[in-house]
Amino acid sequence: MAKGKLLYAQSGGVTAVINATASAVIETARRKGVEVLAGRNGIIGVLREDLIDTSKETAAAIAALRHTPGGAFGSCRYKLKSIEQNRPQYERLIEVFRAHDVRWFLYNGGNDSADTALKISQIGKALGYPIATIGVPKTVDNDLAVTDCCPGFGSVAKYTAVSVAEASLDVESMCESSTKVFVIEVMGRHAGWIAAAAGLAARKAGDPPHMILFPEIAFDEDKFLARVKETVERVGYCTVVVSEGVKNAAGQFLAEAGTRDAFGHTQLGGAAPVISQLVKAKLGYKYHWALPDYLQRSARHLASKVDVDQAYAVGKAAVEYALKGQNAVMPVIVRTSDKPYRWKIESAPLEKVANHEKKLPKNFIRPDGYGITPAARRYLEPLIRGEDPPPYAKDGVPSYVRLRNARVRKRLPEYRIEDK
Amino acid sequence: MAKGKLLYAQSGGVTAVINATASAVIETARRKGVEVLAGRNGIIGVLREDLIDTSKETAAAIAALRHTPGGAFGSCRYKLKSIEQNRPQYERLIEVFRAHDVRWFLYNGGNDSADTALKISQIGKALGYPIATIGVPKTVDNDLAVTDCCPGFGSVAKYTAVSVAEASLDVESMCESSTKVFVIEVMGRHAGWIAAAAGLAARKAGDPPHMILFPEIAFDEDKFLARVKETVERVGYCTVVVSEGVKNAAGQFLAEAGTRDAFGHTQLGGAAPVISQLVKAKLGYKYHWALPDYLQRSARHLASKVDVDQAYAVGKAAVEYALKGQNAVMPVIVRTSDKPYRWKIESAPLEKVANHEKKLPKNFIRPDGYGITPAARRYLEPLIRGEDPPPYAKDGVPSYVRLRNARVRKRLPEYRIEDK
Repeated sequence: MAKGKLLYAQSGGVTAVINATASAVIETARRKGVEVLAGRNGIIGVLREDLIDTSKETAAAIAALRHTPGGAFGSCRYKLKSIEQNRPQYERLIEVFRAHDVRWFLYNGGNDSADTALKISQIGKALGYPIATIGVPKTVDNDLAVTDCCPGFGSVAKYTAVSVAEASLDVESMCESSTKVFVIEVMGRHAGWIAAAAGLAARKAGDPPHMILFPEIAFDEDKFLARVKETVERVGYCTVVVSEGVKNAAGQFLAEAGTRDAFGHTQLGGAAPVISQLVKAKLGYKYHWALPDYLQRSARHLASKVDVDQAYAVGKAAVEYALKGQNAVMPVIVRTSDKPYRWKIESAPLEKVANHEKKLPKNFIRPDGYGITPAARRYLEPLIRGEDPPPYAKDGVPSYVRLRNARVRKRLPEYRIEDK
Repeated sequence: MAKGKLLYAQSGGVTAVINATASAVIETARRKGVEVLAGRNGIIGVLREDLIDTSKETAAAIAALRHTPGGAFGSCRYKLKSIEQNRPQYERLIEVFRAHDVRWFLYNGGNDSADTALKISQIGKALGYPIATIGVPKTVDNDLAVTDCCPGFGSVAKYTAVSVAEASLDVESMCESSTKVFVIEVMGRHAGWIAAAAGLAARKAGDPPHMILFPEIAFDEDKFLARVKETVERVGYCTVVVSEGVKNAAGQFLAEAGTRDAFGHTQLGGAAPVISQLVKAKLGYKYHWALPDYLQRSARHLASKVDVDQAYAVGKAAVEYALKGQNAVMPVIVRTSDKPYRWKIESAPLEKVANHEKKLPKNFIRPDGYGITPAARRYLEPLIRGEDPPPYAKDGVPSYVRLRNARVRKRLPEYRIEDK
């Protein structure tokens, strides 16, 4: 039987499947006889010694995490400074680990979290408290290095593709006498992964979405308008997917470029309304726009089964790696075959993941800049395969679980977090 | 065997389930040996003699309509003028009916369509071409009179309740260090039916949504801000549902009030961004907002089974009423019991439906104006019960059908539609 406890914390923006990873971590640890603590609101809770005793949760509740969106223990947007800048913060973490006999720390997040986990591992050794730290991948942005894809991305990709297909059927049926241009804005401040996934709505050339605006391609107003006009004249309507990260040739976000008028008054943001208004002003077409925002990353009801399975698999592997004595690693998804799609989990050094960013490959964007290539489809399509609907209650709403989140008694003096 | 053909047309904004009604119409008529024509883009197609021969569609395609959103034959926003204002238009309709041996006309839409169907029935008789006209109910707005609810509403209600529940879990898990106020804007220009349905996300007092802004209640900025502040201080975050139809005390739509600044510059619309910016400016909270727009009414992937069943039932009944010789009627949904929820279809005179509008009952809104009452829940909850997911293809996207929409050869001179 292993000695000590395992501490799990969620970091950064949550996803539809981060709780599936949490479920795997706790279920796997329980099978191995290891107790799991969780940080309340991520690393902030660890610093504050605000810890959750997951042993107080029933097996049914932990199983239900697999189908519950959001972050069950709370997550946070909080990046630790470097060790040089704030060594006491790292020392505090080690102090908390020591006080609660934490021997394994699993940090479930993106790039920053991988970096934090790496540093904790190093400082632990220096302070004479060896702590095995495992990064566990998670991000709808799909921008982690080494891993073939990131848990959370497949589900937002599926939500986006299905929503674009559905809304386009709506617009198509009304376009003769109503809306001719429909604009939907998707997440992706730095890379067009989610925007690219919208392309999966199209099964053959000419299917909507008719245009995708990627953050990787500078927005060219004239070219854009010409294409919208041509599309409306040819097929009657035009579905446009715009990434929130789209910039103009001057490098400004469209959404921000539209937020101040000439008098400096703040206007209301969003790239979709900016694009829509441009279409109306220059082409006169009736438009509608949608901005699903958090709906896209919390839509567990429409999760990809592949994504859920992978989210679970990285959680399970993380515990196994930790208990086997691995340190400063991350379980990553390795694609072993495209057709049929096959994947496995492998261990990768955190230093290869931390602070790298996976860009959308250039060959995923069509030469005209407005769509995805067969290479993109080959990569993306397997990630949205399969459905894994949550159970629904009789009242028509999914049975999402709410944990008890019983707190562990504190043993240390209070700690103030600076500039949260 | 009945003589003559049945003509079916879709009207107004489409829904996730209007095609389920179309499926029922065609399947029922086929069983009775009656051929079904469909207007291409609704009544516009009938006026233009642009008709679809549904006998060219396979049984599998017609069955698949049941799970396909949008309007398979096209719909339109086009209101016929009164007979006094434009008698030739009504005469043209009769001429088209006569040319194609149309004996039954089924018009699938909302208030206006019921009125149009009624008038067509009257003018047919006057012109010596008796045409049995049946209105078939459809609208996400749920504002048709007589019928207990409207096909299309239950599904948008379910989408809204589930989306609010999911996004709230997301916000809750991040609120310690990130977004504190989440605003989602729902459809409902004149009545708060969809906004009310968002209240179904809450299973017990205190669950999100914490506030619903109804079009029936004038927006009171101070009271609203005080409640947001109180909620954030108490539970850490605040989910606000705002109806697009919310107005200020002066009777202006919030979305429009926000579209021009003091210098007369057009700003970008939406009630959600207006509300969000107000929260930021006055309370300083970080916000996010979502505006699902067409996504909410086309989300067949999340349709309510009760809604799909009712959409099918009204289509089936409409054909049965027509073939039995009923005229100027609409099949309506009658609720025979709340617990257990039971309903049946009955025939109602079109003149009782046409040009009436069903308001959200006053006793559905909580005395504080920001939530729904037990009476509202009793009415709404059965309408979102049950799931009826579409079949998904192996590529992870639903298998929505696209009809051939083969046209019927024209027999009449061309007809120009004025001021479409």
